[in-house]
Amino acid sequence: MQNINGQLSEEKVFKDPVHRYIHVRDTLIWELIGTREFQRLRRIRQLGTTFFTFHGAEHSRFNHSLGVYEIMRRIIEVFQGRPHWDNNERLLCLSAALLHDVGHGPFSHSFEKVFNTDHEEWTREIILGETEINQVLRKMGEDFPQKVADVIEKTYSNKLVVSLISSQIDADRMDYLQRDAYFTGVSYGHFDMERILRVMRPMEDQAVIKQSGMHAVEDYIMSRYQMYWQVYFHPVTRSAEVILSKILMRTKHLYEAGYEFKQEPVHFYSLFNEKKSIEDYLRLDEAIILYYFQIWQEEDDRILRDLCGRFLNRRLFKYVEFNPNLQMKEWPILYQLFHEAGIDPEYYLVVDSSSDLPYDFYRPGEEEERLPIHLQMPNGKIRELSRESDVVEAISGKKRTDHKLYFPFDFLEDETENATIKQKIKAILFK
Amino acid sequence: MQNINGQLSEEKVFKDPVHRYIHVRDTLIWELIGTREFQRLRRIRQLGTTFFTFHGAEHSRFNHSLGVYEIMRRIIEVFQGRPHWDNNERLLCLSAALLHDVGHGPFSHSFEKVFNTDHEEWTREIILGETEINQVLRKMGEDFPQKVADVIEKTYSNKLVVSLISSQIDADRMDYLQRDAYFTGVSYGHFDMERILRVMRPMEDQAVIKQSGMHAVEDYIMSRYQMYWQVYFHPVTRSAEVILSKILMRTKHLYEAGYEFKQEPVHFYSLFNEKKSIEDYLRLDEAIILYYFQIWQEEDDRILRDLCGRFLNRRLFKYVEFNPNLQMKEWPILYQLFHEAGIDPEYYLVVDSSSDLPYDFYRPGEEEERLPIHLQMPNGKIRELSRESDVVEAISGKKRTDHKLYFPFDFLEDETENATIKQKIKAILFK
Amino acid sequence: MQNINGQLSEEKVFKDPVHRYIHVRDTLIWELIGTREFQRLRRIRQLGTTFFTFHGAEHSRFNHSLGVYEIMRRIIEVFQGRPHWDNNERLLCLSAALLHDVGHGPFSHSFEKVFNTDHEEWTREIILGETEINQVLRKMGEDFPQKVADVIEKTYSNKLVVSLISSQIDADRMDYLQRDAYFTGVSYGHFDMERILRVMRPMEDQAVIKQSGMHAVEDYIMSRYQMYWQVYFHPVTRSAEVILSKILMRTKHLYEAGYEFKQEPVHFYSLFNEKKSIEDYLRLDEAIILYYFQIWQEEDDRILRDLCGRFLNRRLFKYVEFNPNLQMKEWPILYQLFHEAGIDPEYYLVVDSSSDLPYDFYRPGEEEERLPIHLQMPNGKIRELSRESDVVEAISGKKRTDHKLYFPFDFLEDETENATIKQKIKAILFK
Amino acid sequence: MQNINGQLSEEKVFKDPVHRYIHVRDTLIWELIGTREFQRLRRIRQLGTTFFTFHGAEHSRFNHSLGVYEIMRRIIEVFQGRPHWDNNERLLCLSAALLHDVGHGPFSHSFEKVFNTDHEEWTREIILGETEINQVLRKMGEDFPQKVADVIEKTYSNKLVVSLISSQIDADRMDYLQRDAYFTGVSYGHFDMERILRVMRPMEDQAVIKQSGMHAVEDYIMSRYQMYWQVYFHPVTRSAEVILSKILMRTKHLYEAGYEFKQEPVHFYSLFNEKKSIEDYLRLDEAIILYYFQIWQEEDDRILRDLCGRFLNRRLFKYVEFNPNLQMKEWPILYQLFHEAGIDPEYYLVVDSSSDLPYDFYRPGEEEERLPIHLQMPNGKIRELSRESDVVEAISGKKRTDHKLYFPFDFLEDETENATIKQKIKAILFK
Repeated sequence: MQNINGQLSEEKVFKDPVHRYIHVRDTLIWELIGTREFQRLRRIRQLGTTFFTFHGAEHSRFNHSLGVYEIMRRIIEVFQGRPHWDNNERLLCLSAALLHDVGHGPFSHSFEKVFNTDHEEWTREIILGETEINQVLRKMGEDFPQKVADVIEKTYSNKLVVSLISSQIDADRMDYLQRDAYFTGVSYGHFDMERILRVMRPMEDQAVIKQSGMHAVEDYIMSRYQMYWQVYFHPVTRSAEVILSKILMRTKHLYEAGYEFKQEPVHFYSLFNEKKSIEDYLRLDEAIILYYFQIWQEEDDRILRDLCGRFLNRRLFKYVEFNPNLQMKEWPILYQLFHEAGIDPEYYLVVDSSSDLPYDFYRPGEEEERLPIHLQMPNGKIRELSRESDVVEAISGKKRTDHKLYFPFDFLEDETENATIKQKIKAILFK
Repeated sequence: MQNINGQLSEEKVFKDPVHRYIHVRDTLIWELIGTREFQRLRRIRQLGTTFFTFHGAEHSRFNHSLGVYEIMRRIIEVFQGRPHWDNNERLLCLSAALLHDVGHGPFSHSFEKVFNTDHEEWTREIILGETEINQVLRKMGEDFPQKVADVIEKTYSNKLVVSLISSQIDADRMDYLQRDAYFTGVSYGHFDMERILRVMRPMEDQAVIKQSGMHAVEDYIMSRYQMYWQVYFHPVTRSAEVILSKILMRTKHLYEAGYEFKQEPVHFYSLFNEKKSIEDYLRLDEAIILYYFQIWQEEDDRILRDLCGRFLNRRLFKYVEFNPNLQMKEWPILYQLFHEAGIDPEYYLVVDSSSDLPYDFYRPGEEEERLPIHLQMPNGKIRELSRESDVVEAISGKKRTDHKLYFPFDFLEDETENATIKQKIKAILFK
Repeated sequence: MQNINGQLSEEKVFKDPVHRYIHVRDTLIWELIGTREFQRLRRIRQLGTTFFTFHGAEHSRFNHSLGVYEIMRRIIEVFQGRPHWDNNERLLCLSAALLHDVGHGPFSHSFEKVFNTDHEEWTREIILGETEINQVLRKMGEDFPQKVADVIEKTYSNKLVVSLISSQIDADRMDYLQRDAYFTGVSYGHFDMERILRVMRPMEDQAVIKQSGMHAVEDYIMSRYQMYWQVYFHPVTRSAEVILSKILMRTKHLYEAGYEFKQEPVHFYSLFNEKKSIEDYLRLDEAIILYYFQIWQEEDDRILRDLCGRFLNRRLFKYVEFNPNLQMKEWPILYQLFHEAGIDPEYYLVVDSSSDLPYDFYRPGEEEERLPIHLQMPNGKIRELSRESDVVEAISGKKRTDHKLYFPFDFLEDETENATIKQKIKAILFK
Repeated sequence: MQNINGQLSEEKVFKDPVHRYIHVRDTLIWELIGTREFQRLRRIRQLGTTFFTFHGAEHSRFNHSLGVYEIMRRIIEVFQGRPHWDNNERLLCLSAALLHDVGHGPFSHSFEKVFNTDHEEWTREIILGETEINQVLRKMGEDFPQKVADVIEKTYSNKLVVSLISSQIDADRMDYLQRDAYFTGVSYGHFDMERILRVMRPMEDQAVIKQSGMHAVEDYIMSRYQMYWQVYFHPVTRSAEVILSKILMRTKHLYEAGYEFKQEPVHFYSLFNEKKSIEDYLRLDEAIILYYFQIWQEEDDRILRDLCGRFLNRRLFKYVEFNPNLQMKEWPILYQLFHEAGIDPEYYLVVDSSSDLPYDFYRPGEEEERLPIHLQMPNGKIRELSRESDVVEAISGKKRTDHKLYFPFDFLEDETENATIKQKIKAILFK
């Protein structure tokens, strides 16, 4: 395929279940997709452990990244020729959309917690470091990789461009809500994206929505709200994630304690030692993780062995409601009883809390400022969404938190040992 | 969850994108799903290398197996109380539907070709051997596992039961056509299953379709036809499969030649030695395969290294039309030229042929006899489908074959060495 | 088709775009569908003048009535065998669901306002009077028609039965939201009905929803909210309705003034004279109305002629925001100016207000008490929905009203006469 | 809304369930939609009597005409800038697409048969005569109406333009298959139009399809085939049409015989007298027809009264298979027996035959030559579809005919009179 001014000689299309077709005309985009760092996203699931709850959720980040790119492409089509829109930013927007998640590793959430890494940092490294992606981006100019990284990190000077990929209604969110709904099969997650795109308008600092499209945006906000509670924070998914985190913690602990693994966990060394190595990081994908989990099922360490078996064979922890703020007294009691029952509470008694803020207006000075959604009124004025929409106002700024206590119920059921203690535990848990 | 006469105390449901919900009421089924052999199907993709062509096709055999079970459950609901239907076969049908694919390994097609294994045999072993599945099945009676195996192997005495899972219109096919269409996103693969189920009737030897549903069946046959050519036999998918097979062949060859792998391929030993071991077989899943492919990217053997890199980073072979029957003379010439160009033709020059018979009436004595679809006419008589349907008659018994020649175009493009020979090769390939 | 104990010898199905199939097994239901009073619903659109805004909204009340019946059938399937459910109420529920709208006339909303009729009263008359429906119902017992009427009028003793057809989450609403969304093509109106049905439970006084289904109910409430503002109260639809009402008012006025119509409006006489006649009422359908509107395009009366032309050829009134409470002073000025401009304000200057209460908890003593939705908590207790759901709480009890002023902009544009007055009018309207 | 070079100041959209949105940017198109002749299409159902079989099929020709326009708009978008495409034909194509059905009257099929009219002729008259449509079209040039008429009549010099609206794969067919499938709710009628549009290419004489899109075209041909037999030729639909035709025949007969109608059927006079009058023709819509059918239920003529009651209350004729070619002898016997039984066979014994040719290659000299579908091969050559596609070849040129005999079964059931004769009739019909 020859290039004609950066265009492919013939448009390439990907069949996509969510957007029907994904269209690629730019050589740059086509080459980025072909890099090994981008292809690696095929081996990382978009929704981590969610497939344990919704068996359809087996789609990869490759899948989602193409989708974000496609939405960006359509937004730019709408912006074409309008005031405030500078078409020189086009390829920058498309590249940033495609690459915004490229630093994700397998089960990022758990890995970041345990190993103190950050997928956003890795995204930056992959874009700026010695990678195929960097090589392709540099064809657009020496400073192009840095610009792409800046857009993803929200430090780029053109705030409109940043807002298209990181705001409360951006290409990223619009793709994942629809895509995750499609693959899980839930009936939430649908909203009229075509309409939203049609009423998006470029402004100096951000994209705004014509007021006539407000109801489509309300619907989108509600989809987001439902997806969080029905899918993303599902307690079964979190149970698998709790186990995963505990496996990683145990491995790290064993390594630090000088434990001898039957097979050296070489892929983890740079994580254990907190040494950054792009090469090592890029080797980490879900296949590697699952390989180790499988062989660790035969390790001598009882805890590691047990937890890996639970993860692979979906023998998850059970859960009860547990509010650590209200149930402060119960916690040390349970902790002590688990100890006495011979069930290490460090690994087998876990509180997990999830919380979400479905929509927020701007609260300057807060840790993570969230750009609010702005409507463009018929008279041209700009109004923040929650001032116009009852529904959004109702849920705006309201953080909801859900606390659960996870534990291996099968251990407690087995009363061949420590029967009395286990009965006490169960009495507290299921009172 | 306690059992009440083999029923769960509360129905369990799985959210499924294709059938909306999958309903489980029987303890037997619930326990089978929970076995490690069944959970392992989560780590085996339904469509092998198809995800390289259709990025949505990342769904697992776990996913499909639940779907076949659900369709069987609905068929039985329709059959309930009708003549020829013996409700004592109910749990047998459901178990066979759920387990029919349990012997599949990763990328079965390639593995079977190279290592001379057979997933159907493995299914049998897993059902009858020392497995959790066998243990659960035995709760229904000592001969129950054998009965399940018989149904799957089509040797069970009640032919009606066999036909529900292995005929030209069975629960298996009805699920995969719809499911594969859903996950790839293609617009083929849709047919009115609800109608087909409503007009299915049990007969002594097989399920038949009331004639009033003939058009829905035609539509199903056409879906099948389109899915084969648009999805299952897609040349890009086959390119990835060709590479995969060649990796396996190369590994086997190296092992037999006494090559020293940097890391011992222990998971492959029983395959290399053609020793059957359920334990070893069950360890093989796609994660393991991808783990090896990744580390083999750093092997000394140039061919193994190259092929693994191609597979992981989607640097696939290109293809041209090539009919081995018509182009017999070209083959040895190409083979020789590849040799001369230093590109081992054993691994880099591959003919792949796919062929399909979208529908067939019964032809006794042929290798794989296929049970035809029968219609029940308003007068009660039975007629074979292609005698009633013009469309089906038209494609009935017509085998279509597609031949392609695969090769690494990038090697031929690189003219730093053997330029003249490579030009000759290209002249032949692209004449 | 012979009856076997009230069952058809073979199930009948209707292909339905919303529920896929509508299943009829009871002779009673089949015969009700065949009556002329029920068939007449084919000639009455479900959404009145909405087709002027959404051209797909051409579906009839026949269509919707079958849908409500089907949902009821599925609810009863779920209730089968559960406590509080008396299966003797089955046919009563099904009949009431099917017939709940049978008293609707063409464009009921406008007719009821102008002629002071009430479709609920007509439903009662049709069920109890000398009709084919009454004859069919009486086969179930002399008091059966009365029971059906009672259920529809919410006076039936079994409140559970009443709630299935008249509550904030009943078979009627669940059908129309989905159906109207389907035919208009809007992306609102979708919710997971299958899930809601699965978690509905019969209680003494009403159907409740298991708490695990709360999010599906939230989604349903939001659908309802969106459908009201996006579809049902669409200002263009209301413009057509305003014109329709004015046609009816004008006709009535002319009749009362002794005007001689070129063709006698015989079909309207009982309405003009407020004499109830089932026979006359049943003759009124949309075809009849449109027939008159067509011939009235050639009447001598200028206003009638003009309004009918507007309706048939979609020359609708334009509108501006207008709050009659806040703009009290402007109203008489406009009214006077219209007079002066020779545009009769009685017919050509119309304020229309729509308001909706998307969800309400119980407020005893209010005009139209609305049964709230109740959740059944895991501990068996019952809680009102808005106490559990933030989103529903947010919109609960909040009445939203939209006021518009409608007028014929084309009259004002034409400045051949009364130019100065018309300019004044426009200055006020578009200030 | 002001015009800027023939463009609306702001794009108008219609929400459409099939194409999601219909986009209008040209003032010409917007004004054509607003004419009374086009608005009249709202009162004419797309599928005539099909709503008696599929209750969702209540959509109008207005609905379909907008859809054809939208597909044409998208085709032109794909053609833009390609060889053989002259963008000066754009508005002509869009106008012809929008107006191609504007001459349709209510239940055209039956009317044309009985009154010897032709909707294509009426389309021509409406475009060229004194109508609002003609006035709007003339703004584009005095010869523009004639050009539009020529395109619709297939006599226009640019055959490419003609083929877009009248070929075996044109905007008209692509819309109606999808639309009729959507509104009836059947699962046939789906095909990947987006793909077909993407691979359509303009050629000198017609639009061709790139060979890579062949399977999408096969799917379209199969959809067409299925829709014909499942929807368009459904025997229940035809039963209603048979009754309708007989009503029209009876009315004409009575009029010619000097019968005095209680209300003069003024709307029919020009049809009875075969005088063409656009004004009269435009008054005829389904509302008018249904109005007459209703009042004729009270006519003295027993046959007219009965038939109208049947139509309005869906008391349709039953049918049996009957091949007039094979059963030549039975016909006069049945005819005679009906006479003897006092059931006028002229109106109550009707043979109806439907036949379809799902796809045809070109057969010069035949009555209605049908332009075949051509594929553009990778080498640029053009091949006729059935030479490339097995499936299409299989059904190509094969005419299938279905014969039914319709009669009022209720008359035959009633054995209070002529019992013996009726038994004889039934013996023949149901032998």
